[in-house]
Amino acid sequence: MAASSSVTAARAALIARSIPGSSGPSHPDRLSIPAGLGFRSPARLSTRLPRTPRRSSQAVRAAAVETVEKTATLEVVEKSVNTIRFLAIDAVEKANSGHPGLPMGCAPMGHILYDEVMRYNPKNPYWFNRDRFVLSAGHGCMLQYALLHLAGYDSVKEEDLKSFRQWGSRTPGHPENFETPGCEVTTGPLGQGIANAVGLALAEKHLAARFNKPDSEIVDHYTYVIVGDGCNMEGVSNEAASLAGHWGLGKLIAFYDDNHISIDGDTEIAFTEDVSARFEALGWHTIWVKNGNTGYDEIRAAIEEAKSVTDKPTMIKVTTTIGYGSPNKANSYSVHGSALGAKEVDATRQNLGWPYEPFHVPEDVKSHWSRHVPEGAALEAEWNAKLAEYEKKYPDEAADLKSIVYGELPAGWDKALPTYTPESPADATRNLSQQCLNALAKVLPGFLGGSADLASSNMTLLKMYGDFQKATPEERNIRFGVREHGMGAICNGIALHSPGLIPYCATFFVFTDYMRGAMRISALCEAGVIYVMTHDSIGLGEDGPTHQPIEHLVSFRAMPNMLMFRPADGNETAGAYKVAVLNRKRPSILALSRQKLPQLPGTSIEGVEKGGYIVSDNSSGNKPDLILMGTGSELEIAAKAADELRKEGKAVRVVSFVSWELFDEQSDAYKESVLPEAVTARVSIEAGSTLGWQKYVGSKGKAIGIDRFGASAPAGKIYKEYGITAENVIATAKAL
Amino acid sequence: MAASSSVTAARAALIARSIPGSSGPSHPDRLSIPAGLGFRSPARLSTRLPRTPRRSSQAVRAAAVETVEKTATLEVVEKSVNTIRFLAIDAVEKANSGHPGLPMGCAPMGHILYDEVMRYNPKNPYWFNRDRFVLSAGHGCMLQYALLHLAGYDSVKEEDLKSFRQWGSRTPGHPENFETPGCEVTTGPLGQGIANAVGLALAEKHLAARFNKPDSEIVDHYTYVIVGDGCNMEGVSNEAASLAGHWGLGKLIAFYDDNHISIDGDTEIAFTEDVSARFEALGWHTIWVKNGNTGYDEIRAAIEEAKSVTDKPTMIKVTTTIGYGSPNKANSYSVHGSALGAKEVDATRQNLGWPYEPFHVPEDVKSHWSRHVPEGAALEAEWNAKLAEYEKKYPDEAADLKSIVYGELPAGWDKALPTYTPESPADATRNLSQQCLNALAKVLPGFLGGSADLASSNMTLLKMYGDFQKATPEERNIRFGVREHGMGAICNGIALHSPGLIPYCATFFVFTDYMRGAMRISALCEAGVIYVMTHDSIGLGEDGPTHQPIEHLVSFRAMPNMLMFRPADGNETAGAYKVAVLNRKRPSILALSRQKLPQLPGTSIEGVEKGGYIVSDNSSGNKPDLILMGTGSELEIAAKAADELRKEGKAVRVVSFVSWELFDEQSDAYKESVLPEAVTARVSIEAGSTLGWQKYVGSKGKAIGIDRFGASAPAGKIYKEYGITAENVIATAKAL
Repeated sequence: MAASSSVTAARAALIARSIPGSSGPSHPDRLSIPAGLGFRSPARLSTRLPRTPRRSSQAVRAAAVETVEKTATLEVVEKSVNTIRFLAIDAVEKANSGHPGLPMGCAPMGHILYDEVMRYNPKNPYWFNRDRFVLSAGHGCMLQYALLHLAGYDSVKEEDLKSFRQWGSRTPGHPENFETPGCEVTTGPLGQGIANAVGLALAEKHLAARFNKPDSEIVDHYTYVIVGDGCNMEGVSNEAASLAGHWGLGKLIAFYDDNHISIDGDTEIAFTEDVSARFEALGWHTIWVKNGNTGYDEIRAAIEEAKSVTDKPTMIKVTTTIGYGSPNKANSYSVHGSALGAKEVDATRQNLGWPYEPFHVPEDVKSHWSRHVPEGAALEAEWNAKLAEYEKKYPDEAADLKSIVYGELPAGWDKALPTYTPESPADATRNLSQQCLNALAKVLPGFLGGSADLASSNMTLLKMYGDFQKATPEERNIRFGVREHGMGAICNGIALHSPGLIPYCATFFVFTDYMRGAMRISALCEAGVIYVMTHDSIGLGEDGPTHQPIEHLVSFRAMPNMLMFRPADGNETAGAYKVAVLNRKRPSILALSRQKLPQLPGTSIEGVEKGGYIVSDNSSGNKPDLILMGTGSELEIAAKAADELRKEGKAVRVVSFVSWELFDEQSDAYKESVLPEAVTARVSIEAGSTLGWQKYVGSKGKAIGIDRFGASAPAGKIYKEYGITAENVIATAKAL
Repeated sequence: MAASSSVTAARAALIARSIPGSSGPSHPDRLSIPAGLGFRSPARLSTRLPRTPRRSSQAVRAAAVETVEKTATLEVVEKSVNTIRFLAIDAVEKANSGHPGLPMGCAPMGHILYDEVMRYNPKNPYWFNRDRFVLSAGHGCMLQYALLHLAGYDSVKEEDLKSFRQWGSRTPGHPENFETPGCEVTTGPLGQGIANAVGLALAEKHLAARFNKPDSEIVDHYTYVIVGDGCNMEGVSNEAASLAGHWGLGKLIAFYDDNHISIDGDTEIAFTEDVSARFEALGWHTIWVKNGNTGYDEIRAAIEEAKSVTDKPTMIKVTTTIGYGSPNKANSYSVHGSALGAKEVDATRQNLGWPYEPFHVPEDVKSHWSRHVPEGAALEAEWNAKLAEYEKKYPDEAADLKSIVYGELPAGWDKALPTYTPESPADATRNLSQQCLNALAKVLPGFLGGSADLASSNMTLLKMYGDFQKATPEERNIRFGVREHGMGAICNGIALHSPGLIPYCATFFVFTDYMRGAMRISALCEAGVIYVMTHDSIGLGEDGPTHQPIEHLVSFRAMPNMLMFRPADGNETAGAYKVAVLNRKRPSILALSRQKLPQLPGTSIEGVEKGGYIVSDNSSGNKPDLILMGTGSELEIAAKAADELRKEGKAVRVVSFVSWELFDEQSDAYKESVLPEAVTARVSIEAGSTLGWQKYVGSKGKAIGIDRFGASAPAGKIYKEYGITAENVIATAKAL
């Protein structure tokens, strides 16, 4: 099983590539014990694939389509591949925790990507025009850490490899973009990464369509992703892949690590579908590399073919052996998620002919990879010069592009947000939200988004733009179809593509249940996605309990780094958008009403910025008799009840709790000014779970809410039957 | 466009059925205005499809394979179909809310299913051996209500149709099994229904394999489901469909209502994949009925073909016109989710030749459908006789089967649960859980389940059973693959198949984020699924924040009708299982530790049944100086802190809050006996969000927890860094 070393062989392999329907049984390498480094083939050429015919002549890596450029002998390639394998083995062994199997199997494709194919600058992981790489099978993160280390990224030094999975290290147990520059996104929960990659590729296609000029291809990069069997089983990956096919994301290239092993054993026990045929049904181009373990030329040729298909994303099924090189554990689930153990590490060193100490990078490998630092710097310098030229010719476009590239919001952008007076017409906050969305789209160059097939209910269409589609990628209304989970994960990819891209996405609030996996990742990976969640309570009425959120507000209030807003009217909706846009590293959820709400006296954008604030008060000296609190559609009810009680001579304060998280971040003095400790007569009202309100109403106060499922009936009727009424607030307050 | 009326035509249509890859552009009926009742073809035959060659000669509907049985003239069929259409139109119109489009388009397949194909007993919707029908596109519920009405179900009388979507009615806005007998499951959130149907079909295949005998096919029914474009876009449906193909669920027959319209308009804007080709890649048999509007024979022939394919599920793509019959709104999104309006209702009456008053069922239609009540009663009587005979011959099997059919737990089953003493070895609650699972599987005939590819981590294998697979459906370990959402929804289907089926399913607790859509439906539809959720906190260690739950406990505590358990040791784990098994209409979640925990003095099954209870106390007169509370792995920490404080002379009570929901259901007197109001020095500790704990610690108490994301490091290190320690509890208590 010597690696093929001729370009001809690579082309022959391509001709014999996967035919849909034939993917099932044959896993040629799975049961054989991998060869060691014993063989030595003569020095040979690796392909250097061209980027695009328009590349400037100064391009560091430019090459004509059919030529190959000598970069390394097969010996160095194999040594580099084994370096990657052993860095993974050694780090997992030292941590006594982690997943060595994937890095050992995927090292060849990883090497080819980072050493031969991808364009990046190790010293500036945030260089805008870099190729993006996503390890969707995030448990194999040591693959990526090893590659970043070899490529010269400062984020993964030798000491980082040695502190893999330890407290405070930059090499956590799964790739985390906020810990490790060079990781584009945060993966681990399976299927997220491929969906993030679809978002990254969407962003590239959109920006290229908007900003590229006949004489300047200023936006131009690929997105690569490695997915595993687990990713391909997850529904979210099918959702995202269906959209990628629909959108024709030709610069998205996915490698499917077809190793036929998952945690529970052989994939035969639960995963016998024809993955390649499914992807073809989804509109992808597919290729099968049958020998992913040593078929370097097959891998190279597949990438070349993938790049030649510009109107479809490509899925390259690469059949590999999990734990390749381990004589006793390869091709078994035991190598998936545990350290090999000292004995098997020794056996693997023996088998692969690896005489080095743990964590050693041989000098010739080091020397071979060392070119990436200067080459990367040159690539970025070249692009910066290109941008300077572009700016001269196209100053308006350049201003927008730079806002997106560097994440600087245009001065005074927030002045575009609408404000309202109590005389403004009553309206549903979903409609008021649409006014904000359209106002923001006019002033924020990177603002784009859409709905999961509910645009006309969520009120999310940007009226001045068309649809982002295969033929019109410059447009900004994204049609996600009924794919909430994929939508959220795609938006994470968009947000993490460039700091000035501000994606929003929409569905009914209750369907956050479908996309919570992606939303939590938004919060964790610091992607400032704006979640426009309408139909936020029993107020949606007749659709009934499957569509009526109850526990959702509290469930997101408890989620770290997530801003949960429930605005009561136009000013609060505008305020929520202002905070959401400013929080580029913290996602926001806006829970919005289906039903009309009045514009309340006392609401303000500034109030929203504090999270909780006094909307009305007839007390003095910070000593009201009673504090009524509400959010969203129930703030009106609290205000009505206060009016009644004031008529009876009571000093009543009404507080809007539009965002708990923001209120909790205020000073103690501010909190005391809103909720004085001495005032224990407190009543909250919210058409949702009462859980958590105890922290504001206190032991002597009372939370009015809904701790059961909703019902199918006209909204007003449900409100009445469930006691979400001013009468109930008044009665409850009087009972205190 | 007259309906074909010859059997020959039906066969010709079959020959011309969908070829994968050709499904995209052709929607022959979509743009044409439907024909009215003007044409009158001669009385004709409808196929009556055979159930199985083994049916007894007394079978009410028995027929040989190739014969057709005269049941209705085409005139009556079309009148019946239009009755269904107008009942939907009229109910939506009266409610001024709802979705007329689907019922109008799907009425033909609905009629054929309920009038010609399915076996059921209208007067006992729970008859065990009935065919199951699921409307996965649940918004079209008026289709099902109209069919149940015509078939003679007591749950949908004329007055129920007239109170569609009104408070207290049995005809809510989406099908709800707990409101409307005859609805098998609760749908509306898209994709759930098809996954439920996979669970129903799995249950049938499993029970048939276990209980059928060469001389008695006691379990034998089909599962039918109608899915829409929306269902097919959702990832959960792909997950479930992949498993259905893998398992070869030959008696699952799905109708894909291919109407090319979703809420945002033509599916061309977001859904251009080849659905049939995808299903074939997933291992399904596919058929295309090109004329779903009037092609009755095509539909009949497709069902016949589907039944003939016994080793694969079948997906019949039925191309229909949404809102068929409405001259101005058919084939547009405007007919999807709104009443037609009086004018268009009139136009549709005109167009379809429908002279009747709203809600009228013509006498000949009524008369035609009236046979289903006696026939259904006969079917059930026949089956009951069969069961009696079966019981005589196979008393042991019959006892198990009856336990499953009627949901009576075997006497003394709970004695099988293990108990522990403080001297029992420390162990992870996930391991203790496995002891319970295996103990229960021995005594509960309907106990089965599995994991989403984490069986060896979740510790969920039943050691005395093999895998439920295509060739071994009698076994009880279900291998779900990495498909959490599909797993949850499939388990809902299993639970709702028979009251004695008790499914459990497992993954890491954090990945409830992937399956929350299904879990909420479990709670709403009263499916007593047991969710075995391991790796329940930062205690999982090195895998890091993507894998560490924080907000999950509180998020489920807030979910109505869901029991959230976090047991601390073996006795509490056994207690949680006891309550979970007893609660057949309330799902349970067990959050279980990865790490070892000691068997604590004072824990008990009886304590768990109260939700919160005193584990240890050195106070008297219900007046401790301090109350410490904890759950799960932190109860040990609370106990340790109490020991230290008692050494200093304090009277300290330790309370386990293993299930908040159960504690909240106790009497005020019991609550006071555990948490006396007078004692305000209270500290809680839990390795999760503090949100919600305020209701137990009170305004003066303190909740120790984690309100940020976790980290990748060994578990002990994270516990220390995050202050989840006895030292912190002691210091906090002293500061109070």
